[in-house]
Amino acid sequence: MQIREVTSSSNALVKVFRRSLAGGVTPEGWLAVEGPRLLEEALQACAKLPNSSPVTVHSVLVSRSGAEKFDSLMARLPGDAETVQVPDRLFQRVAQTQTPQGIAALVELAHADLGETLARRDSLLVIACGLQDPGNLGTILRSAQALGATALVTLAATVSPFNPKAVRSCAGAVFRMPVFAGQDPGTLFERLRNAGIRIVATDRHSSLSLAQADLRGRLALLVGNEAAGLAPEITAQGAMRLSIPIRADTDSINAAMAATIFLYEAVRQREFRY
Amino acid sequence: MQIREVTSSSNALVKVFRRSLAGGVTPEGWLAVEGPRLLEEALQACAKLPNSSPVTVHSVLVSRSGAEKFDSLMARLPGDAETVQVPDRLFQRVAQTQTPQGIAALVELAHADLGETLARRDSLLVIACGLQDPGNLGTILRSAQALGATALVTLAATVSPFNPKAVRSCAGAVFRMPVFAGQDPGTLFERLRNAGIRIVATDRHSSLSLAQADLRGRLALLVGNEAAGLAPEITAQGAMRLSIPIRADTDSINAAMAATIFLYEAVRQREFRY
Repeated sequence: MQIREVTSSSNALVKVFRRSLAGGVTPEGWLAVEGPRLLEEALQACAKLPNSSPVTVHSVLVSRSGAEKFDSLMARLPGDAETVQVPDRLFQRVAQTQTPQGIAALVELAHADLGETLARRDSLLVIACGLQDPGNLGTILRSAQALGATALVTLAATVSPFNPKAVRSCAGAVFRMPVFAGQDPGTLFERLRNAGIRIVATDRHSSLSLAQADLRGRLALLVGNEAAGLAPEITAQGAMRLSIPIRADTDSINAAMAATIFLYEAVRQREFRY
Repeated sequence: MQIREVTSSSNALVKVFRRSLAGGVTPEGWLAVEGPRLLEEALQACAKLPNSSPVTVHSVLVSRSGAEKFDSLMARLPGDAETVQVPDRLFQRVAQTQTPQGIAALVELAHADLGETLARRDSLLVIACGLQDPGNLGTILRSAQALGATALVTLAATVSPFNPKAVRSCAGAVFRMPVFAGQDPGTLFERLRNAGIRIVATDRHSSLSLAQADLRGRLALLVGNEAAGLAPEITAQGAMRLSIPIRADTDSINAAMAATIFLYEAVRQREFRY
Protein backbone atom coordinates (compact mmCIF):
# COMPACT_ATOMS: atom_id res chain seq x y z
CA MET A 1 0.00 0.00 0.00
CA GLN A 2 1.28 3.42 -0.93
CA ILE A 3 0.39 6.47 1.12
CA ARG A 4 0.48 9.72 -0.78
CA GLU A 5 1.12 12.95 1.16
CA VAL A 6 -1.09 15.89 0.27
CA THR A 7 -1.09 19.31 1.89
CA SER A 8 -3.43 21.23 -0.39
CA SER A 9 -7.15 21.52 0.30
CA SER A 10 -7.70 21.75 -3.47
CA ASN A 11 -6.50 18.17 -4.02
CA ALA A 12 -9.23 16.26 -5.85
CA LEU A 13 -9.58 13.41 -3.34
CA VAL A 14 -9.59 15.83 -0.39
CA LYS A 15 -12.43 17.66 -2.11
CA VAL A 16 -14.38 14.43 -2.66
CA PHE A 17 -14.01 13.56 1.03
CA ARG A 18 -15.09 17.02 2.15
CA ARG A 19 -18.23 16.96 0.01
CA SER A 20 -19.22 13.36 0.65
CA LEU A 21 -18.56 13.26 4.42
CA ALA A 22 -21.19 15.99 4.80
CA GLY A 23 -23.89 14.11 2.90
CA GLY A 24 -22.75 10.56 3.54
CA VAL A 25 -22.37 9.38 -0.08
CA THR A 26 -20.20 10.14 -3.11
CA PRO A 27 -21.74 10.78 -6.54
CA GLU A 28 -21.02 7.08 -7.34
CA GLY A 29 -23.10 6.06 -4.33
CA TRP A 30 -20.13 5.00 -2.22
CA LEU A 31 -20.52 5.53 1.49
CA ALA A 32 -18.24 8.11 3.13
CA VAL A 33 -17.49 7.09 6.72
CA GLU A 34 -15.45 8.66 9.49
CA GLY A 35 -13.55 7.01 12.31
CA PRO A 36 -11.67 3.76 12.89
CA ARG A 37 -14.70 1.77 14.08
CA LEU A 38 -16.69 2.12 10.88
CA LEU A 39 -13.59 1.46 8.75
CA GLU A 40 -12.94 -1.64 10.88
CA GLU A 41 -16.54 -2.78 10.28
CA ALA A 42 -16.13 -2.22 6.55
CA LEU A 43 -12.88 -4.21 6.44
CA GLN A 44 -14.50 -7.06 8.36
CA ALA A 45 -17.35 -7.10 5.85
CA CYS A 46 -14.82 -7.22 2.97
CA ALA A 47 -12.93 -10.05 4.59
CA LYS A 48 -16.01 -12.16 5.11
CA LEU A 49 -16.80 -12.71 1.45
CA PRO A 50 -13.37 -12.77 -0.20
CA ASN A 51 -14.58 -14.21 -3.52
CA SER A 52 -17.47 -11.96 -4.28
CA SER A 53 -15.90 -9.07 -2.32
CA PRO A 54 -19.10 -7.11 -2.22
CA VAL A 55 -17.93 -4.41 0.18
CA THR A 56 -14.91 -2.52 -1.18
CA VAL A 57 -12.81 0.12 0.56
CA HIS A 58 -11.79 2.39 -2.35
CA SER A 59 -10.09 5.36 -0.67
CA VAL A 60 -8.80 6.33 2.75
CA LEU A 61 -8.01 9.80 4.04
CA VAL A 62 -5.84 9.87 7.15
CA SER A 63 -4.31 12.66 9.22
CA ARG A 64 -0.62 12.55 10.14
CA SER A 65 -1.35 11.62 13.73
CA GLY A 66 -4.12 9.26 12.57
CA ALA A 67 -1.61 7.34 10.41
CA GLU A 68 0.48 6.63 13.54
CA LYS A 69 -2.47 5.86 15.80
CA PHE A 70 -4.20 3.53 13.33
CA ASP A 71 -1.16 1.84 11.80
CA SER A 72 -2.46 -1.70 12.36
CA LEU A 73 -5.79 -0.78 10.76
CA MET A 74 -3.95 0.86 7.83
CA ALA A 75 -1.88 -2.30 7.35
CA ARG A 76 -5.07 -4.24 6.68
CA LEU A 77 -6.32 -1.98 3.87
CA PRO A 78 -6.67 -3.64 0.47
CA GLY A 79 -3.59 -3.15 -1.70
CA ASP A 80 -5.46 -1.18 -4.34
CA ALA A 81 -7.08 1.28 -1.92
CA GLU A 82 -6.05 4.87 -2.69
CA THR A 83 -4.63 6.27 0.54
CA VAL A 84 -3.89 9.94 1.15
CA GLN A 85 -2.31 11.46 4.23
CA VAL A 86 -2.94 15.09 5.13
CA PRO A 87 -1.82 17.42 7.93
CA ASP A 88 -4.01 17.22 11.07
CA ARG A 89 -5.38 20.73 10.51
CA LEU A 90 -6.51 19.92 6.98
CA PHE A 91 -8.17 16.71 8.18
CA GLN A 92 -10.08 18.70 10.78
CA ARG A 93 -11.42 21.01 8.07
CA VAL A 94 -12.55 18.05 5.96
CA ALA A 95 -14.06 16.04 8.84
CA GLN A 96 -17.68 16.46 9.85
CA THR A 97 -17.49 15.14 13.40
CA GLN A 98 -16.84 17.47 16.33
CA THR A 99 -13.73 15.64 17.48
CA PRO A 100 -12.31 14.01 14.32
CA GLN A 101 -10.37 10.84 14.96
CA GLY A 102 -8.11 11.24 11.96
CA ILE A 103 -9.31 8.57 9.54
CA ALA A 104 -12.08 8.39 6.94
CA ALA A 105 -12.91 6.11 4.02
CA LEU A 106 -15.01 5.78 0.88
CA VAL A 107 -16.67 2.38 0.85
CA GLU A 108 -18.63 0.74 -1.94
CA LEU A 109 -21.48 -1.27 -0.46
CA ALA A 110 -22.52 -4.71 -1.61
CA HIS A 111 -24.75 -4.64 -4.67
CA ALA A 112 -28.01 -6.32 -3.86
CA ASP A 113 -30.97 -6.90 -6.15
CA LEU A 114 -34.37 -6.03 -4.71
CA GLY A 115 -36.11 -8.71 -6.77
CA GLU A 116 -33.77 -11.43 -5.53
CA THR A 117 -34.08 -10.15 -1.97
CA LEU A 118 -37.89 -10.27 -2.13
CA ALA A 119 -37.75 -13.78 -3.58
CA ARG A 120 -35.86 -15.16 -0.54
CA ARG A 121 -37.82 -17.82 1.31
CA ASP A 122 -36.79 -16.39 4.70
CA SER A 123 -37.78 -12.79 3.83
CA LEU A 124 -38.09 -10.59 6.92
CA LEU A 125 -38.06 -6.99 5.72
CA VAL A 126 -38.24 -3.70 7.57
CA ILE A 127 -39.85 -0.86 5.58
CA ALA A 128 -39.14 2.60 7.02
CA CYS A 129 -42.05 4.85 5.99
CA GLY A 130 -41.33 8.50 6.77
CA LEU A 131 -38.94 8.21 9.73
CA GLN A 132 -37.08 11.51 10.18
CA ASP A 133 -34.52 10.88 12.93
CA PRO A 134 -31.29 9.42 11.49
CA GLY A 135 -30.34 7.99 14.90
CA ASN A 136 -33.63 6.09 15.03
CA LEU A 137 -33.18 4.74 11.50
CA GLY A 138 -29.60 3.68 12.24
CA THR A 139 -30.71 1.91 15.41
CA ILE A 140 -33.45 0.09 13.49
CA LEU A 141 -30.89 -0.99 10.89
CA ARG A 142 -28.62 -2.28 13.67
CA SER A 143 -31.43 -4.23 15.36
CA ALA A 144 -32.77 -5.55 12.05
CA GLN A 145 -29.40 -6.90 11.00
CA ALA A 146 -28.66 -8.35 14.45
CA LEU A 147 -32.04 -10.09 14.65
CA GLY A 148 -31.75 -11.61 11.19
CA ALA A 149 -33.84 -9.38 8.95
CA THR A 150 -33.07 -9.85 5.26
CA ALA A 151 -33.17 -6.18 4.19
CA LEU A 152 -34.02 -2.62 5.18
CA VAL A 153 -36.09 -0.66 2.68
CA THR A 154 -36.78 3.07 3.02
CA LEU A 155 -39.55 4.88 1.18
CA ALA A 156 -39.10 8.29 -0.42
CA ALA A 157 -39.60 11.06 2.20
CA THR A 158 -37.69 9.06 4.80
CA VAL A 159 -34.34 10.16 6.20
CA SER A 160 -31.45 8.61 4.23
CA PRO A 161 -29.98 5.42 5.72
CA PHE A 162 -26.63 6.75 4.44
CA ASN A 163 -26.90 9.94 6.51
CA PRO A 164 -23.68 10.05 8.61
CA LYS A 165 -25.60 9.99 11.90
CA ALA A 166 -27.66 6.98 10.76
CA VAL A 167 -24.47 5.17 9.73
CA ARG A 168 -22.84 5.87 13.12
CA SER A 169 -25.92 4.54 14.94
CA CYS A 170 -26.06 1.35 12.88
CA ALA A 171 -22.65 0.16 14.17
CA GLY A 172 -21.62 -1.29 10.80
CA ALA A 173 -24.88 -3.11 10.01
CA VAL A 174 -25.05 -1.17 6.72
CA PHE A 175 -22.09 -3.27 5.54
CA ARG A 176 -23.73 -6.56 6.47
CA MET A 177 -27.32 -6.25 5.24
CA PRO A 178 -28.86 -5.02 1.97
CA VAL A 179 -30.39 -1.54 2.17
CA PHE A 180 -32.73 -0.23 -0.55
CA ALA A 181 -33.23 3.50 -0.09
CA GLY A 182 -35.85 5.92 -1.39
CA GLN A 183 -38.27 3.40 -2.94
CA ASP A 184 -41.57 4.46 -4.50
CA PRO A 185 -44.37 3.21 -2.20
CA GLY A 186 -46.82 2.12 -4.91
CA THR A 187 -44.24 0.10 -6.81
CA LEU A 188 -42.78 -1.43 -3.67
CA PHE A 189 -46.11 -2.57 -2.22
CA GLU A 190 -47.07 -4.12 -5.54
CA ARG A 191 -43.79 -6.03 -5.61
CA LEU A 192 -44.30 -7.20 -2.02
CA ARG A 193 -47.76 -8.49 -2.86
CA ASN A 194 -46.57 -10.18 -6.03
CA ALA A 195 -43.82 -11.86 -4.03
CA GLY A 196 -46.40 -13.16 -1.54
CA ILE A 197 -44.92 -11.25 1.40
CA ARG A 198 -47.36 -10.40 4.18
CA ILE A 199 -47.34 -6.73 5.24
CA VAL A 200 -47.69 -5.97 8.96
CA ALA A 201 -47.65 -2.79 11.04
CA THR A 202 -47.72 -1.99 14.74
CA ASP A 203 -50.81 -0.17 16.00
CA ARG A 204 -51.39 0.35 19.67
CA HIS A 205 -55.17 0.32 19.20
CA SER A 206 -55.27 -3.07 17.51
CA SER A 207 -57.00 -5.80 19.51
CA LEU A 208 -54.61 -8.39 18.08
CA SER A 209 -51.36 -8.42 20.02
CA LEU A 210 -48.01 -9.24 18.51
CA ALA A 211 -47.59 -12.45 20.49
CA GLN A 212 -51.04 -13.73 19.44
CA ALA A 213 -50.31 -13.31 15.73
CA ASP A 214 -48.49 -15.87 13.63
CA LEU A 215 -45.30 -14.12 12.51
CA ARG A 216 -43.70 -17.12 10.85
CA GLY A 217 -43.43 -17.01 7.09
CA ARG A 218 -42.35 -14.16 4.82
CA LEU A 219 -43.05 -10.77 6.35
CA ALA A 220 -42.50 -7.04 5.84
CA LEU A 221 -42.83 -4.73 8.85
CA LEU A 222 -43.87 -1.12 8.26
CA VAL A 223 -42.35 1.47 10.62
CA GLY A 224 -43.96 4.92 10.53
CA ASN A 225 -42.91 8.47 11.30
CA GLU A 226 -41.86 9.12 14.94
CA ALA A 227 -44.72 11.54 15.64
CA ALA A 228 -47.36 10.98 12.96
CA GLY A 229 -47.06 7.22 12.51
CA LEU A 230 -48.01 5.74 9.14
CA ALA A 231 -49.51 7.97 6.44
CA PRO A 232 -53.03 7.05 5.20
CA GLU A 233 -51.75 6.05 1.73
CA ILE A 234 -49.46 3.57 3.46
CA THR A 235 -52.08 2.13 5.83
CA ALA A 236 -54.38 1.75 2.81
CA GLN A 237 -52.01 -0.97 1.58
CA GLY A 238 -53.89 -3.35 3.87
CA ALA A 239 -51.28 -4.25 6.43
CA MET A 240 -52.20 -6.57 9.27
CA ARG A 241 -52.16 -4.38 12.39
CA LEU A 242 -50.71 -5.68 15.63
CA SER A 243 -50.39 -4.10 19.06
CA ILE A 244 -47.44 -4.16 21.44
CA PRO A 245 -48.65 -4.57 25.03
CA ILE A 246 -47.93 -1.14 26.52
CA ARG A 247 -49.52 0.59 29.50
CA ALA A 248 -52.77 2.46 29.02
CA ASP A 249 -51.31 5.71 30.43
CA THR A 250 -48.58 5.76 27.80
CA ASP A 251 -48.95 7.15 24.29
CA SER A 252 -46.35 5.17 22.49
CA ILE A 253 -42.85 3.83 22.55
CA ASN A 254 -39.92 4.93 20.44
CA ALA A 255 -40.19 3.79 16.79
CA ALA A 256 -36.87 1.93 16.96
CA MET A 257 -37.98 0.10 20.13
CA ALA A 258 -41.27 -0.93 18.52
CA ALA A 259 -39.46 -2.27 15.45
CA THR A 260 -36.98 -4.14 17.65
CA ILE A 261 -39.72 -5.77 19.74
CA PHE A 262 -41.52 -6.82 16.57
CA LEU A 263 -38.38 -8.36 15.06
CA TYR A 264 -37.57 -10.15 18.30
CA GLU A 265 -41.07 -11.65 18.43
CA ALA A 266 -40.81 -12.79 14.80
CA VAL A 267 -37.43 -14.40 15.53
CA ARG A 268 -38.74 -16.03 18.72
CA GLN A 269 -41.64 -17.59 16.84
CA ARG A 270 -39.32 -18.89 14.15
CA GLU A 271 -36.94 -20.22 16.78
CA PHE A 272 -33.97 -19.00 14.80
CA ARG A 273 -30.63 -20.30 15.96
CA TYR A 274 -27.67 -18.34 14.70
CA MET B 1 -52.74 32.33 38.27
CA GLN B 2 -50.64 35.46 38.38
CA ILE B 3 -47.88 36.03 35.86
CA ARG B 4 -45.09 38.26 37.06
CA GLU B 5 -43.06 40.20 34.47
CA VAL B 6 -39.32 40.20 34.99
CA THR B 7 -36.72 41.80 32.72
CA SER B 8 -33.57 41.39 34.81
CA SER B 9 -31.25 38.44 34.44
CA SER B 10 -30.36 38.84 38.13
CA ASN B 11 -33.89 37.93 39.27
CA ALA B 12 -33.67 35.02 41.71
CA LEU B 13 -36.03 32.67 39.85
CA VAL B 14 -34.38 33.42 36.49
CA LYS B 15 -31.05 32.48 38.10
CA VAL B 16 -32.50 29.22 39.45
CA PHE B 17 -33.79 28.33 35.97
CA ARG B 18 -30.48 29.15 34.33
CA ARG B 19 -28.51 26.99 36.74
CA SER B 20 -30.91 24.07 36.88
CA LEU B 21 -31.76 23.82 33.17
CA ALA B 22 -28.07 23.13 32.53
CA GLY B 23 -27.83 20.26 35.02
CA GLY B 24 -31.43 19.10 34.99
CA VAL B 25 -32.23 19.46 38.72
CA THR B 26 -32.55 22.24 41.31
CA PRO B 27 -30.78 22.03 44.68
CA GLU B 28 -34.09 20.71 46.14
CA GLY B 29 -34.05 17.87 43.59
CA TRP B 30 -36.82 19.30 41.44
CA LEU B 31 -36.56 18.53 37.76
CA ALA B 32 -35.97 21.49 35.41
CA VAL B 33 -37.60 20.82 32.05
CA GLU B 34 -37.81 22.80 28.82
CA GLY B 35 -40.53 22.86 26.21
CA PRO B 36 -44.32 22.46 26.07
CA ARG B 37 -44.29 18.68 25.60
CA LEU B 38 -42.52 17.88 28.87
CA LEU B 39 -44.65 20.44 30.76
CA GLU B 40 -47.74 18.82 29.24
CA GLU B 41 -46.51 15.40 30.41
CA ALA B 42 -45.90 16.77 33.91
CA LEU B 43 -49.39 18.32 34.07
CA GLN B 44 -50.95 15.05 32.92
CA ALA B 45 -49.07 13.21 35.66
CA CYS B 46 -50.33 15.76 38.26
CA ALA B 47 -53.90 15.38 37.04
CA LYS B 48 -53.85 11.62 37.24
CA LEU B 49 -53.43 11.37 41.00
CA PRO B 50 -55.33 14.40 42.29
CA ASN B 51 -55.45 13.25 45.92
CA SER B 52 -51.85 12.37 46.51
CA SER B 53 -50.68 14.90 43.89
CA PRO B 54 -47.24 13.39 43.73
CA VAL B 55 -45.97 15.37 40.73
CA THR B 56 -46.05 19.13 41.38
CA VAL B 57 -45.30 21.95 38.95
CA HIS B 58 -43.75 24.60 41.23
CA SER B 59 -42.51 27.28 38.86
CA VAL B 60 -42.84 28.19 35.20
CA LEU B 61 -40.62 30.50 33.17
CA VAL B 62 -42.14 31.70 29.92
CA SER B 63 -40.99 34.07 27.20
CA ARG B 64 -43.32 36.83 25.97
CA SER B 65 -44.03 35.02 22.71
CA GLY B 66 -44.20 31.70 24.58
CA ALA B 67 -46.99 33.10 26.80
CA GLU B 68 -49.09 33.77 23.69
CA LYS B 69 -48.25 30.54 21.92
CA PHE B 70 -48.87 28.32 24.96
CA ASP B 71 -51.85 30.14 26.49
CA SER B 72 -54.01 27.01 26.75
CA LEU B 73 -51.17 25.14 28.47
CA MET B 74 -50.61 28.11 30.83
CA ALA B 75 -54.30 28.12 31.71
CA ARG B 76 -53.95 24.58 33.06
CA LEU B 77 -51.12 25.37 35.49
CA PRO B 78 -51.91 24.83 39.17
CA GLY B 79 -53.08 28.05 40.90
CA ASP B 80 -50.10 28.13 43.25
CA ALA B 81 -47.42 27.71 40.58
CA GLU B 82 -45.05 30.66 40.51
CA THR B 83 -45.07 31.97 36.95
CA VAL B 84 -42.60 34.48 35.57
CA GLN B 85 -42.61 35.98 32.08
CA VAL B 86 -39.40 37.33 30.57
CA PRO B 87 -38.44 38.99 27.27
CA ASP B 88 -37.68 36.50 24.47
CA ARG B 89 -34.00 37.46 24.48
CA LEU B 90 -33.63 36.78 28.19
CA PHE B 91 -35.38 33.41 27.80
CA GLN B 92 -32.93 32.47 25.06
CA ARG B 93 -30.02 33.19 27.40
CA VAL B 94 -31.53 31.02 30.14
CA ALA B 95 -32.58 28.13 27.88
CA GLN B 96 -30.23 25.24 27.16
CA THR B 97 -31.79 23.97 23.95
CA GLN B 98 -30.57 25.22 20.57
CA THR B 99 -33.99 26.49 19.48
CA PRO B 100 -35.79 27.36 22.74
CA GLN B 101 -39.55 27.05 22.54
CA GLY B 102 -40.22 29.70 25.18
CA ILE B 103 -41.43 27.72 28.17
CA ALA B 104 -39.71 25.88 31.02
CA ALA B 105 -40.78 24.51 34.40
CA LEU B 106 -39.49 23.25 37.75
CA VAL B 107 -41.27 20.03 38.61
CA GLU B 108 -41.18 18.09 41.86
CA LEU B 109 -41.32 14.37 41.10
CA ALA B 110 -43.38 11.86 43.02
CA HIS B 111 -41.70 10.72 46.23
CA ALA B 112 -41.23 6.99 46.10
CA ASP B 113 -39.73 4.75 48.74
CA LEU B 114 -37.21 2.19 47.52
CA GLY B 115 -38.14 -0.28 50.25
CA GLU B 116 -41.83 -0.15 49.34
CA THR B 117 -40.98 -0.41 45.65
CA LEU B 118 -38.84 -3.51 46.22
CA ALA B 119 -41.61 -5.06 48.32
CA ARG B 120 -44.14 -4.92 45.45
CA ARG B 121 -45.33 -8.35 44.38
CA ASP B 122 -45.15 -7.38 40.68
CA SER B 123 -41.57 -6.03 40.91
CA LEU B 124 -39.95 -5.67 37.49
CA LEU B 125 -36.94 -3.40 37.93
CA VAL B 126 -34.36 -2.09 35.49
CA ILE B 127 -30.93 -1.40 37.02
CA ALA B 128 -28.70 0.80 34.87
CA CYS B 129 -25.09 -0.11 35.71
CA GLY B 130 -22.65 2.36 34.17
CA LEU B 131 -24.57 3.52 31.07
CA GLN B 132 -23.04 6.76 29.79
CA ASP B 133 -25.33 7.91 26.97
CA PRO B 134 -28.23 9.99 28.33
CA GLY B 135 -30.29 9.29 25.19
CA ASN B 136 -29.94 5.55 25.78
CA LEU B 137 -30.91 5.87 29.43
CA GLY B 138 -33.94 8.04 28.56
CA THR B 139 -35.04 5.52 25.92
CA ILE B 140 -34.71 2.68 28.44
CA LEU B 141 -36.81 4.67 30.93
CA ARG B 142 -39.46 5.22 28.24
CA SER B 143 -39.58 1.54 27.28
CA ALA B 144 -39.52 0.40 30.91
CA GLN B 145 -42.47 2.58 31.86
CA ALA B 146 -44.42 1.67 28.72
CA LEU B 147 -43.88 -2.06 29.23
CA GLY B 148 -44.92 -1.96 32.88
CA ALA B 149 -41.64 -1.98 34.82
CA THR B 150 -42.09 -0.87 38.44
CA ALA B 151 -38.96 1.30 38.76
CA LEU B 152 -35.70 2.40 37.17
CA VAL B 153 -32.64 2.32 39.43
CA THR B 154 -29.27 3.77 38.41
CA LEU B 155 -26.02 2.91 40.12
CA ALA B 156 -23.36 5.48 40.95
CA ALA B 157 -21.09 6.09 37.91
CA THR B 158 -24.10 5.99 35.58
CA VAL B 159 -25.31 9.03 33.64
CA SER B 160 -28.03 10.87 35.58
CA PRO B 161 -31.62 10.00 34.60
CA PHE B 162 -32.36 13.70 35.26
CA ASN B 163 -29.84 14.83 32.62
CA PRO B 164 -31.83 17.08 30.22
CA LYS B 165 -31.12 14.83 27.23
CA ALA B 166 -32.24 11.73 29.15
CA VAL B 167 -35.43 13.51 30.18
CA ARG B 168 -36.16 14.54 26.58
CA SER B 169 -35.64 10.95 25.37
CA CYS B 170 -37.93 9.49 28.02
CA ALA B 171 -41.00 11.32 26.67
CA GLY B 172 -42.43 12.02 30.13
CA ALA B 173 -41.92 8.53 31.60
CA VAL B 174 -39.90 10.12 34.45
CA PHE B 175 -43.20 11.60 35.71
CA ARG B 176 -45.00 8.26 35.64
CA MET B 177 -42.54 5.77 37.14
CA PRO B 178 -40.30 5.87 40.25
CA VAL B 179 -36.63 6.53 39.50
CA PHE B 180 -33.92 5.93 42.13
CA ALA B 181 -30.67 7.50 40.99
CA GLY B 182 -27.06 7.00 42.03
CA GLN B 183 -27.51 3.96 44.31
CA ASP B 184 -24.58 2.21 45.96
CA PRO B 185 -24.19 -1.21 44.27
CA GLY B 186 -23.36 -3.24 47.39
CA THR B 187 -26.32 -1.90 49.37
CA LEU B 188 -28.72 -2.22 46.46
CA PHE B 189 -27.85 -5.84 45.63
CA GLU B 190 -28.18 -6.80 49.29
CA ARG B 191 -31.65 -5.21 49.39
CA LEU B 192 -32.65 -7.00 46.17
CA ARG B 193 -31.58 -10.34 47.60
CA ASN B 194 -33.32 -9.68 50.91
CA ALA B 195 -36.48 -8.79 49.01
CA GLY B 196 -36.28 -12.09 47.10
CA ILE B 197 -35.91 -10.43 43.71
CA ARG B 198 -34.08 -12.48 41.08
CA ILE B 199 -31.27 -10.66 39.32
CA VAL B 200 -30.85 -11.26 35.58
CA ALA B 201 -28.52 -9.88 32.91
CA THR B 202 -28.22 -10.23 29.17
CA ASP B 203 -25.09 -11.97 27.90
CA ARG B 204 -24.69 -12.89 24.26
CA HIS B 205 -22.48 -15.85 25.14
CA SER B 206 -24.98 -17.49 27.48
CA SER B 207 -26.38 -20.79 26.23
CA LEU B 208 -29.72 -20.02 27.90
CA SER B 209 -31.83 -17.81 25.69
CA LEU B 210 -34.30 -15.27 26.97
CA ALA B 211 -37.33 -17.10 25.64
CA GLN B 212 -36.24 -20.39 27.27
CA ALA B 213 -35.94 -18.83 30.74
CA ASP B 214 -38.85 -18.34 33.12
CA LEU B 215 -39.18 -14.57 33.51
CA ARG B 216 -42.35 -14.61 35.56
CA GLY B 217 -42.02 -13.57 39.19
CA ARG B 218 -40.12 -10.68 40.71
CA LEU B 219 -37.13 -9.65 38.60
CA ALA B 220 -34.40 -7.04 38.30
CA LEU B 221 -32.66 -6.63 34.93
CA LEU B 222 -29.08 -5.33 34.89
CA VAL B 223 -28.12 -3.14 31.92
CA GLY B 224 -24.39 -2.51 31.50
CA ASN B 225 -22.22 0.15 29.92
CA GLU B 226 -22.67 0.63 26.13
CA ALA B 227 -19.12 -0.47 25.27
CA ALA B 228 -17.76 -2.38 28.27
CA GLY B 229 -20.93 -4.14 29.43
CA LEU B 230 -21.23 -5.05 33.11
CA ALA B 231 -18.27 -4.46 35.45
CA PRO B 232 -16.82 -7.53 37.22
CA GLU B 233 -18.03 -6.36 40.66
CA ILE B 234 -21.56 -6.26 39.22
CA THR B 235 -21.42 -9.64 37.47
CA ALA B 236 -20.07 -11.10 40.74
CA GLN B 237 -23.52 -10.47 42.22
CA GLY B 238 -24.58 -13.76 40.67
CA ALA B 239 -27.09 -12.67 38.09
CA MET B 240 -28.72 -15.29 35.88
CA ARG B 241 -27.31 -14.66 32.38
CA LEU B 242 -29.55 -14.86 29.34
CA SER B 243 -28.82 -14.43 25.65
CA ILE B 244 -30.84 -12.57 23.05
CA PRO B 245 -30.84 -14.50 19.75
CA ILE B 246 -28.66 -12.31 17.54
CA ARG B 247 -26.68 -13.25 14.44
CA ALA B 248 -23.22 -14.73 14.88
CA ASP B 249 -21.59 -12.03 12.70
CA THR B 250 -22.85 -9.26 14.97
CA ASP B 251 -21.14 -8.10 18.15
CA SER B 252 -24.03 -6.73 20.05
CA ILE B 253 -27.17 -4.67 19.89
CA ASN B 254 -27.76 -1.25 21.42
CA ALA B 255 -28.18 -1.36 25.23
CA ALA B 256 -31.64 0.23 25.04
CA MET B 257 -32.72 -2.36 22.44
CA ALA B 258 -31.50 -5.24 24.61
CA ALA B 259 -33.34 -3.88 27.66
CA THR B 260 -36.51 -3.34 25.63
CA ILE B 261 -36.45 -6.89 24.20
CA PHE B 262 -35.92 -8.28 27.69
CA LEU B 263 -38.84 -6.31 29.15
CA TYR B 264 -41.09 -7.31 26.26
CA GLU B 265 -40.27 -10.98 26.80
CA ALA B 266 -40.96 -10.67 30.56
CA VAL B 267 -44.30 -8.99 29.81
CA ARG B 268 -45.19 -11.58 27.18
CA GLN B 269 -44.55 -14.43 29.60
CA ARG B 270 -46.68 -12.74 32.27
CA GLU B 271 -49.40 -12.11 29.69
CA PHE B 272 -49.95 -8.63 31.07
CA ARG B 273 -53.04 -6.88 29.84
CA TYR B 274 -52.99 -3.15 30.36
